Amino acid sequence: MKSVEEVTAEVLQKIRPSLIESERLMRLANELLKTVRDLSNNYEGILDARLEGSVAKGTWIRGREEIDVFVQFSKDVDKDSLEKTILEIGNGVIKKFGGKTEVRYAEHPYVEGIISGVRVNIVACYKVECGMWLSAVDRTPYHTEYIKSKLTEALADEIRLMKSFMLGCGVYGAEIRIGGFSGYLAELLTINYGNFYNALKAASNWRPPIYVDIEGHYTDKREALEAFGRPHILVIDPVDKKRNVAAAITDTKLSEFILASKLFLDSPSEKFFYIPERTNGRIMMTEIRRALRGRCILGLRLKVQQKPPDVLWGEIKHTLKGICRALEYEGFKTFRYDAWSEGNMCIMLFELQELNLPTCYVHHGPPTYLANALEFVKKHSTAQDTVAGPWISGLRLYVLKSRAKTSVKDIIRMRLARGDVSVSAGLMEAVKHAKICKSNDELARLASKNISFRKFLFEFLEARPSFLTKHDQ
Amino acid sequence: MKSVEEVTAEVLQKIRPSLIESERLMRLANELLKTVRDLSNNYEGILDARLEGSVAKGTWIRGREEIDVFVQFSKDVDKDSLEKTILEIGNGVIKKFGGKTEVRYAEHPYVEGIISGVRVNIVACYKVECGMWLSAVDRTPYHTEYIKSKLTEALADEIRLMKSFMLGCGVYGAEIRIGGFSGYLAELLTINYGNFYNALKAASNWRPPIYVDIEGHYTDKREALEAFGRPHILVIDPVDKKRNVAAAITDTKLSEFILASKLFLDSPSEKFFYIPERTNGRIMMTEIRRALRGRCILGLRLKVQQKPPDVLWGEIKHTLKGICRALEYEGFKTFRYDAWSEGNMCIMLFELQELNLPTCYVHHGPPTYLANALEFVKKHSTAQDTVAGPWISGLRLYVLKSRAKTSVKDIIRMRLARGDVSVSAGLMEAVKHAKICKSNDELARLASKNISFRKFLFEFLEARPSFLTKHDQ
Repeated sequence: MKSVEEVTAEVLQKIRPSLIESERLMRLANELLKTVRDLSNNYEGILDARLEGSVAKGTWIRGREEIDVFVQFSKDVDKDSLEKTILEIGNGVIKKFGGKTEVRYAEHPYVEGIISGVRVNIVACYKVECGMWLSAVDRTPYHTEYIKSKLTEALADEIRLMKSFMLGCGVYGAEIRIGGFSGYLAELLTINYGNFYNALKAASNWRPPIYVDIEGHYTDKREALEAFGRPHILVIDPVDKKRNVAAAITDTKLSEFILASKLFLDSPSEKFFYIPERTNGRIMMTEIRRALRGRCILGLRLKVQQKPPDVLWGEIKHTLKGICRALEYEGFKTFRYDAWSEGNMCIMLFELQELNLPTCYVHHGPPTYLANALEFVKKHSTAQDTVAGPWISGLRLYVLKSRAKTSVKDIIRMRLARGDVSVSAGLMEAVKHAKICKSNDELARLASKNISFRKFLFEFLEARPSFLTKHDQ
Repeated sequence: MKSVEEVTAEVLQKIRPSLIESERLMRLANELLKTVRDLSNNYEGILDARLEGSVAKGTWIRGREEIDVFVQFSKDVDKDSLEKTILEIGNGVIKKFGGKTEVRYAEHPYVEGIISGVRVNIVACYKVECGMWLSAVDRTPYHTEYIKSKLTEALADEIRLMKSFMLGCGVYGAEIRIGGFSGYLAELLTINYGNFYNALKAASNWRPPIYVDIEGHYTDKREALEAFGRPHILVIDPVDKKRNVAAAITDTKLSEFILASKLFLDSPSEKFFYIPERTNGRIMMTEIRRALRGRCILGLRLKVQQKPPDVLWGEIKHTLKGICRALEYEGFKTFRYDAWSEGNMCIMLFELQELNLPTCYVHHGPPTYLANALEFVKKHSTAQDTVAGPWISGLRLYVLKSRAKTSVKDIIRMRLARGDVSVSAGLMEAVKHAKICKSNDELARLASKNISFRKFLFEFLEARPSFLTKHDQ
């Protein structure tokens, strides 16, 4: 078994950019910045433009280069003209460099392009005093400055290790679909614990609630946790004491990170730092069919509209929960659920204990000493769907009823059709017209036609976080 | 609809013995008493013999005549000679009247015989001062005296109505098999509330805990309930303030009585006073087969040894619960259970939600922040019976496992064979060698061979207390 030092040294060899690569990227970044500044001169109310993100901090991972240029607007500029202006500047700059542009949406639209194989984002923010945020990205320049003030070359490598580890373990990314650790959070944790190894050692011993307050904004941990509504992890933003940098982390991702840390320290391996080849590569349809055998999977196919991913995935997650609740209410047992989306397609999967409910179920009545006991007896004694009873056990009445529908497909179709599922407004129509997969064969057919879905389906059926899959499968 | 008065008047016509019948029964009773007294002269330590029970009190129901003769022994007589003596006297008396004797067992053995179609019991007790009880039946003479001191002719009829009502509703009988109301309790309730109608009106409004203390032995209801361990019904024995006359009543029988009272007052009918013809008469095998359709019934056949019914039924009830718990532990859902016994046969029935468990189940692991999380991951990642996972949801680990056995028959056979079911010691061997019914067809075959079991099976499948079955079926 390799030591942690051996593993991290080898990993660093792969993820640390060479001097030449660094210089090339910085040159491109600076050229872009200059062009943005030039174009900005044509507009009123633009105060500055700056490089942000991992390039500005020098903490990027080789192969995942990304240049963020932030255009800082005056507070006086209204949101509409800010959005209009950033699209004009963004499109102008990226076209000038021969890249193709695409408009993306966060709180505000921004422009994305690929130039010389590097992803470039041209983003608008307001230049405000610390704490006087007008939009979510206004903090970013302050984050960049804070990290730069703490950074050494050695620490940059530790941060690279941390980000790689989180990436390889599937817990990196603050977007709603993932609900994991942001790059800024990875940086803060590494800074807080001094280096990658110490941070991981700490994480392997984490027990919620976890509390990190690098700048000591609060004197009392308990008070701080109370103020934030007792989250399982609270990392105070050094530049904004009212913000929990870890607010977007789900319990699942937090727990995966804790477990991954334990496992890595228990048996260090490079596999923790890379997304497994296995699921990046081709998955055979025979494997899909084998994995589907004996499993009870309910699949729903929805047509979704184009919208910002965080909006769509917020809706998808809410809807998954709502459908799961409806299934449980009907008597099904849901083991797990997840969704996949690409373009205007979305497939929701629910693994159930069984696809058909028993034909009979016991309906609980009131205690016999309550006034409505008589009503219950009269109603159920003569009801068509009463199989046996009413009987009394202990203090209460019961009756054995037969179900009109028993298959999950019939039941969910009925509930979806009558809108009897708690669903996001934005997916209401899509869910009403959702197609229900008739069988595991149909799921396999869908997988055979779409490699991205095939990969998702395989991972869903394996049901293991990436750091638990065998890399040598 | 008839009024309560009309119904009770009609019922009384049927259940009140005529003057001639009364005189004939009293004559037989007195002759028996005289003979017992004569024979008792041959033994030392016998102080007296007395008539007890409904004949002594004049509260019996026509058709259910029963003569109880109690032989009162001196405290100096040891239990062995008391038992030996009562068997000699009992056998002697009943043979003298040309009856066939049978030895029955309560706390002590006693002799039962049928003379001129009337059941006769010759019972031994100690003659003690009130409260100085040496055996459970020593209180009986005091009970008889107490009831007689309260009785009028009118009240005797009210008591007859109450006993008939309880009988017809299936809640009469303090034996463990039934767990219902004793005759003495029926008498006390009628005395307490003044008459049958008022008692039923009270019962229809009962809400546990129910508290009756005719002689005002306690001043504080709450204190009294505390002293008795907070039973759902507490009726203080007028002749023994430390005894709850209702201690043997199960919650189910108490609730059935409450519901029956409500139903009777809601729509008075004679049917409440009689055990339905339906289940006394012949039940067609086609009806049994129809009722079995679609039902999931586990049947166990046991060979039981001869023992006092209260002992046997105590064991049966305990064992039913133990098997039910074992089934639930394995993942089955038990709707109801009950048992039938006759001679050395006993059949236990469990109605289940399904006879086969799903092939997969989710095994819950520890939270990832606990030390044993690693152990769990290592154990289940490579286990043969792991279908998917381990995965993390929220703070906890889970894994999808496959079951080696899924049918209730295989699973219960395995558990019974290895003694892994909480069972009464007295039934341990019987349960280990229990035969498991292979199918509903086998149950139907058993029912076709035994009318008593057929009746039980039919009632089990109908799952309605007698007062809810339609009498005109």
